[in-house]
Amino acid sequence: MRALVYHGPRNIRYDDVADPKIAETTDAIVRVERSGICGSDLHIYHGQGFSPDVGFCVGHEAVGEVVELGGGVRRLSAGQKVMLSAAVGCGSCAKCLGGHIARCENGAAGCYGLGQQLEGCQAAYVRVPMADFNAAPIPDGLTADQALMLTDNLPAAYYGCRHAEIGPGKSVAVVGLGPIGLMAVETAFLLGASRVFAIDLVPERRAIAAEMGAEPIDGTNAIAEIAGRTKMRMADAVVEASGSDATVSMAIALAGVGGTASIVGVNLTPAFQFPMAMAFVKNMTFRIGTCSVQCHWPELIPLIQNGRLHPERFISHHMPLSKGAEAYRLFDARSGGALKMVLTAD
Amino acid sequence: MRALVYHGPRNIRYDDVADPKIAETTDAIVRVERSGICGSDLHIYHGQGFSPDVGFCVGHEAVGEVVELGGGVRRLSAGQKVMLSAAVGCGSCAKCLGGHIARCENGAAGCYGLGQQLEGCQAAYVRVPMADFNAAPIPDGLTADQALMLTDNLPAAYYGCRHAEIGPGKSVAVVGLGPIGLMAVETAFLLGASRVFAIDLVPERRAIAAEMGAEPIDGTNAIAEIAGRTKMRMADAVVEASGSDATVSMAIALAGVGGTASIVGVNLTPAFQFPMAMAFVKNMTFRIGTCSVQCHWPELIPLIQNGRLHPERFISHHMPLSKGAEAYRLFDARSGGALKMVLTAD
Amino acid sequence: MRALVYHGPRNIRYDDVADPKIAETTDAIVRVERSGICGSDLHIYHGQGFSPDVGFCVGHEAVGEVVELGGGVRRLSAGQKVMLSAAVGCGSCAKCLGGHIARCENGAAGCYGLGQQLEGCQAAYVRVPMADFNAAPIPDGLTADQALMLTDNLPAAYYGCRHAEIGPGKSVAVVGLGPIGLMAVETAFLLGASRVFAIDLVPERRAIAAEMGAEPIDGTNAIAEIAGRTKMRMADAVVEASGSDATVSMAIALAGVGGTASIVGVNLTPAFQFPMAMAFVKNMTFRIGTCSVQCHWPELIPLIQNGRLHPERFISHHMPLSKGAEAYRLFDARSGGALKMVLTAD
Amino acid sequence: MRALVYHGPRNIRYDDVADPKIAETTDAIVRVERSGICGSDLHIYHGQGFSPDVGFCVGHEAVGEVVELGGGVRRLSAGQKVMLSAAVGCGSCAKCLGGHIARCENGAAGCYGLGQQLEGCQAAYVRVPMADFNAAPIPDGLTADQALMLTDNLPAAYYGCRHAEIGPGKSVAVVGLGPIGLMAVETAFLLGASRVFAIDLVPERRAIAAEMGAEPIDGTNAIAEIAGRTKMRMADAVVEASGSDATVSMAIALAGVGGTASIVGVNLTPAFQFPMAMAFVKNMTFRIGTCSVQCHWPELIPLIQNGRLHPERFISHHMPLSKGAEAYRLFDARSGGALKMVLTAD
Repeated sequence: MRALVYHGPRNIRYDDVADPKIAETTDAIVRVERSGICGSDLHIYHGQGFSPDVGFCVGHEAVGEVVELGGGVRRLSAGQKVMLSAAVGCGSCAKCLGGHIARCENGAAGCYGLGQQLEGCQAAYVRVPMADFNAAPIPDGLTADQALMLTDNLPAAYYGCRHAEIGPGKSVAVVGLGPIGLMAVETAFLLGASRVFAIDLVPERRAIAAEMGAEPIDGTNAIAEIAGRTKMRMADAVVEASGSDATVSMAIALAGVGGTASIVGVNLTPAFQFPMAMAFVKNMTFRIGTCSVQCHWPELIPLIQNGRLHPERFISHHMPLSKGAEAYRLFDARSGGALKMVLTAD
Repeated sequence: MRALVYHGPRNIRYDDVADPKIAETTDAIVRVERSGICGSDLHIYHGQGFSPDVGFCVGHEAVGEVVELGGGVRRLSAGQKVMLSAAVGCGSCAKCLGGHIARCENGAAGCYGLGQQLEGCQAAYVRVPMADFNAAPIPDGLTADQALMLTDNLPAAYYGCRHAEIGPGKSVAVVGLGPIGLMAVETAFLLGASRVFAIDLVPERRAIAAEMGAEPIDGTNAIAEIAGRTKMRMADAVVEASGSDATVSMAIALAGVGGTASIVGVNLTPAFQFPMAMAFVKNMTFRIGTCSVQCHWPELIPLIQNGRLHPERFISHHMPLSKGAEAYRLFDARSGGALKMVLTAD
Repeated sequence: MRALVYHGPRNIRYDDVADPKIAETTDAIVRVERSGICGSDLHIYHGQGFSPDVGFCVGHEAVGEVVELGGGVRRLSAGQKVMLSAAVGCGSCAKCLGGHIARCENGAAGCYGLGQQLEGCQAAYVRVPMADFNAAPIPDGLTADQALMLTDNLPAAYYGCRHAEIGPGKSVAVVGLGPIGLMAVETAFLLGASRVFAIDLVPERRAIAAEMGAEPIDGTNAIAEIAGRTKMRMADAVVEASGSDATVSMAIALAGVGGTASIVGVNLTPAFQFPMAMAFVKNMTFRIGTCSVQCHWPELIPLIQNGRLHPERFISHHMPLSKGAEAYRLFDARSGGALKMVLTAD
Repeated sequence: MRALVYHGPRNIRYDDVADPKIAETTDAIVRVERSGICGSDLHIYHGQGFSPDVGFCVGHEAVGEVVELGGGVRRLSAGQKVMLSAAVGCGSCAKCLGGHIARCENGAAGCYGLGQQLEGCQAAYVRVPMADFNAAPIPDGLTADQALMLTDNLPAAYYGCRHAEIGPGKSVAVVGLGPIGLMAVETAFLLGASRVFAIDLVPERRAIAAEMGAEPIDGTNAIAEIAGRTKMRMADAVVEASGSDATVSMAIALAGVGGTASIVGVNLTPAFQFPMAMAFVKNMTFRIGTCSVQCHWPELIPLIQNGRLHPERFISHHMPLSKGAEAYRLFDARSGGALKMVLTAD
C-alpha cells in the first residue's frame, strides 16, 4: 500500500509499504479515508520523536471503513465507517479503566505511528488492535471531518480543560491557539467559563478566538495584560496548548490563587525551571500529560451532534495523502493559514 | 413604615408597621429599593405557609441601600447599595460552612418573611441579621434587577442544576418554566448540556425556552415525547421547578439510567407515591431541598458580569410596592404574561 | 452437568442439565469451584424473581478455572483461576463505560441466573460472555473465598457506601446487617466515617458489627436512639442493605440535613410512601440501584491484599453444591448463624 | 505581658511586650494556655521568614481562654475555652469562601506571628481578628492538646492528603515524618489507603509510622525501594512534609501514572528543577500550598472525638513558655526525640 513514512528529520515520504494484516483475533483492518496531522507529529518530523525508529508509517488520527476483522471482534462489522482512538489500550486493565489508556498494563502500544511497534494511519490501511475498544462506528449525524476531530484533538482539548478544573464562573486563559488551543477556547465556554483569555502571537488565530467570545491577548505581553484586566487575580484555570518552556512558564504565571495550570502541549524538558515560591504562594495545581481519547467520547459525541461543539471549523486544509510531505511543510511553517491539516485517501 | 403584610389566605395588604431596628451589633438596616415575589411566596399567599403566624411582613428577595449598621458589621458601610441573601445564617457553624445555611445551627432564622421570627423585605426597610454574611455590595457592573435575581431565584435555579449533576454532554429536562425553570434552562446550557427539553403547559413559556436553544415540550405528553426523541434513554438530569406531585412524578419518570432528578419546587407531600421499582431499575438519584443563596454568588456574579447569564430577562413586571397586592394576584393567576414580579420602592 | 435449577417458589433442585458451550468467540467456559448464595437469590427463591422463567440454573457469584476459551478472548488462558463479575456487560458502550454495566446497551444479559437468557453459576460449569471484561484472574494473594466475595457482595457494599457519599468525619448508619450490611460497616470505617451506627433486629449480627467498632442499635427503636445519640443531627450517610419498605423508610428518616440515603437492598414497591416534606426540609439525596461489580475491583483488590478489608470473615457456611437446596433453606431462615453461604464443587 | 519575640536569626527571646488590645469590634483577646511550635516557625528562626520585620511575637498555634470581646463578636463569650485557626481571614470574601483563607481579599493578615502585621501567640495573650470566624470553642470531649493540634498541624496534614487525592485502595507515600508527616500517615489510612510508605532518615520516626501500619522506608534509597515493592507502579498519591528541594524531587519521582504529589512542606525555591518529561509520561498532578485551617474542622473534630485520629500522640514535649528559646533549639536540632513541641502558660 501507499503511506507516509518517516525517514529522519524533516524527511517524511509517500512510499510503498507492506499492507497491514490481522495479527490478533481482536484486530481490525481499516481502509483510511481521512487522517489528520497533529501537533505532536511535528515532534517526530523535527526528529524529536518518541522512539529511535525510522522507516515506520506516521499518523495517529484516522477515520475509514472496516475491511477485515479478527474473529474476536464483536461490535464492529465489515463495511462499517469507523473512527479510531489515538490512545490504544486493552480496555480492561486498571490503567485503562482508570482513564490512562496510553499507559495500558497489558502491553498495548499506547498510540499509532510513534515507531515500529504500531504502524501509523497516514496510510491507505491501518491495523487496529483490540478494535472493539479502540475504534467505534462514526456516530449518527457526524461528518467524517467531525469524527476525525474526535480521534485525538478535540478529546485532548477537552481533557486539558477538565484537568484545568474549568467550571461555571471561572476565568480561563488558553495559551497557544493552534487547533487544540482553539478547541479549548470553545470547550472552556461550554464548561461555564465566565471569561476566556486567548493568547497567541498570531493575530489571525486570536481573531478566530475572539469570534467565539474570547478576549484576544497578544502573547508578547500576556501576563501584565491579564493582571491588569483581572485586578491581579489572574486566571482560575489555564490551558497550555503549545509545549515550549516559555509557554509552560507563562501558564504557571497566569494561574491565580487556588488556580490550575493544565499542560496539553508536549514538553519534555528534563529540568524545567519551576517557580516554586510562586506556586506555593498561590496554592496552585499543575498538571501535564496525554489524553485517553475514547474515555471522552460519551460526553463529546452528543455535544457535536447537538451543535454545541464545532471542531470541524478549525480544519484549514484538505489535501490528498500523496501530498502529505507538503502538508507537513505547510503545517510546520504555519503558512497559508494552516490550522488543522486533513489528508484524504488518494 | 409601609410594607406588605400577610393577614391570611389571599389577604396581603399594604400596611403601616413599625420600622425595623438594630437588634444585634451584627445587624444592618437596609432601605429596600426593589423586592421580588417568589413562587414560594405563593405558598404563604395560599395559606400554606411555613408558620401559623399572621401579621408579618412578607418577602425574602431584596436589594437596597444600607442606612444603619450595628457596631460589629465590618464589610458593609452606610450608603452602600447591597443585595440580600434569602438564606440567612451565621456563616460559621458546620451547617453554614457545609452549604446548608437555611439549617444554621446557631439559630439564624433561615429566611425572611416566613413568619414573625424575621420580618420580610417587601417593605420600605428590612433588618438584616449577621449582615456581613447575609448581604453583599451589589457587584460592579450589575444592575439592580440583576442583583435582585441573585437574592434567591438564580441561585435556586443554579443549585437545582448542580444537584441534578448537569455536566458536559448530558441531556437535561426542565419541568416547569416559571422564572426559576427558565433560568435552569439557561444554566443547563452554561453547564455543558448537549440538549435541554423544556416542559410546560403554557406555550408562551415554552417559546422563551426555545429561543434559548431548548426543545420545547408540551407538558401534557412529555414522557412519551422525550422517550421518542431519546430512543428511550430519557434525560441524564432533570430539574423540577414547579413542586406539584404530578410534576415531581414526571421528573422521576424522565430520568434515565444513572440519572438524577433534582426538585427545586416546594413539595411537602407527607406520603408521596414514589415509584421505587422504576428508580431501582434506573439506578437513579433523587434530590430535594432549598438553596443556600450566598454560597453560589462567587460563581454566579462573574457569569452575569460577563454576559453569560441574563437573569433579568425573565422579569415581566415592575410595580410599586403599594400595588403589591395586585402584583400577587397577577402572579398567582399567571395572567398578563406574569413571570418574575418586581416591586419598586414607592 | 449437575446444577441448582429453579423450578418454582421454594423449589430449587440439584439437577442434571446440559453442559454450557462456547456460543461467541468472546466467551469462556469456567469450571465453578465455589459459588455464593446472595440475598437477591432469595427473591427468586421466594418466587419474586426478575423473569417468569423456570428451569434455569440459578446463581451469579462464582470463582473457578477456565476450561475453554473462544478465539477472541485475549487476557484469560485455559487453566487460569478466575473470578466472575455478577454484572455482565460489553465493556465499551456508553452505559458500561459510565459504570452502569447491568444496563449495557449492547444486549448483554446484565447478570447470571435470573432467567434463561444467561444460565447461572451454582453449577459445575458456567458460560462467561465477553470474558475479558466480565472475568479476571484471581489477584495475587487472594484466597478463593476472598475472590468470591469480590464477585458481587463486597462491590455492592462498597458501591452502596460510595453512593451514600461516606467520607472523612461523617456519621454513618447501616440498616440491615446481613453480609452486605456488615461489609458496609467495615467499608464505612475504611472511607473515614467518624462513627457508624449498625442496626439490625438480630443481636448476633449487631455483635459482629460492634466488634468492628460500630455502635450496635436495635432495629426496633433505631430512629429515636440515633436521634438521642446525635443530638437530633441524625446520620450524614445511610446505607440500607435489606430492601423492605420498613427499612427503606427508616433509612430516609435516619438521614440528617444534607444527608444521603443509599439503598442497596432490592426494593421494587411500585408506590412507596416517600416522606417528601421530611426530605425537603433535610435537603436530602436518595439513591437506589445495583452495582457494576468489576468497576470497583481496582480499588477493592489492593484493600484485600493489604489486609484493610476482610470480606471472607462474613462467610458462615461452606456446603457442597449438591446440598444447595438445604443451603437455601438455612439462608432463608437465617438459622444456624447463617450469613454468607458458599457452595463448593462436589 | 511576656512573650517569645523574634530578634533575628536563631535569636528568639522571652521578653516583656505590650498587652494586645481590642482594635476592631470583631476582635477577641485570648489568654494563651498552650501554644505550639510549628515546622514553619523554624523558617523564621533560621532568618528565612516571610517578612523583614524583627521585634514581633512569634507563633501561630494556640488554645486558651477568651478574656475580652469586641462588640461585634457573636458566637464566643468571655471565659470560654477556644482554639485559634492559624489561617486568619474575613470569612466572607470569595477567597475565604473558596477555601483560601490565607489569601483573604479583605485584608486579613493570613496568619499570626509572621511579622508585625499580626502579633504571634507564643505569648501570654493574643488578639484574634474576626474572632467568630478565626476561633471556635474547644469541641466537647477534646483535650487542650488535641485542640492545639487542630490549630494548624492536623489540618495541614489532612489538607495535604486530600490534595494528594488519597482515596480507597490507593497506595500512598509520605516523605518526611515530622509531626505533620506522621499525621499524614494516620490520615492516609483513614482515607482508605491500601498501603502507606513512610519515608524518613530517622529510624525512630519510621518506627512510629510502622506502628500505625505503614511500611517504613529509609530515605536514602526510597525511590528504588518503592519501585521494587510496587513492581514499578510507584505510589498513587504522595504527601511531602519536609520542604527541601531533595524531598520535593523525591515526591515527584515517587508518583506513579496518574498520580499526585502534594507538597505540604514550605519550599520557596525560585527555579526548582522540575522533571517535566517524567511528569508528562506519568500524566501527573503536582500541588503545593498552605492550608485553610478552619475549613477542615467540621470533618476533623468528630474524627478526634470518636477516636479515629489521635494527633496528640505526636506531641513529644510540654515546656513552659519561659523556656521557649530552649524549645526552639531542641526542635531545630531534632534532639531528644523532639517531635511536636508544646509551650504551656507560665
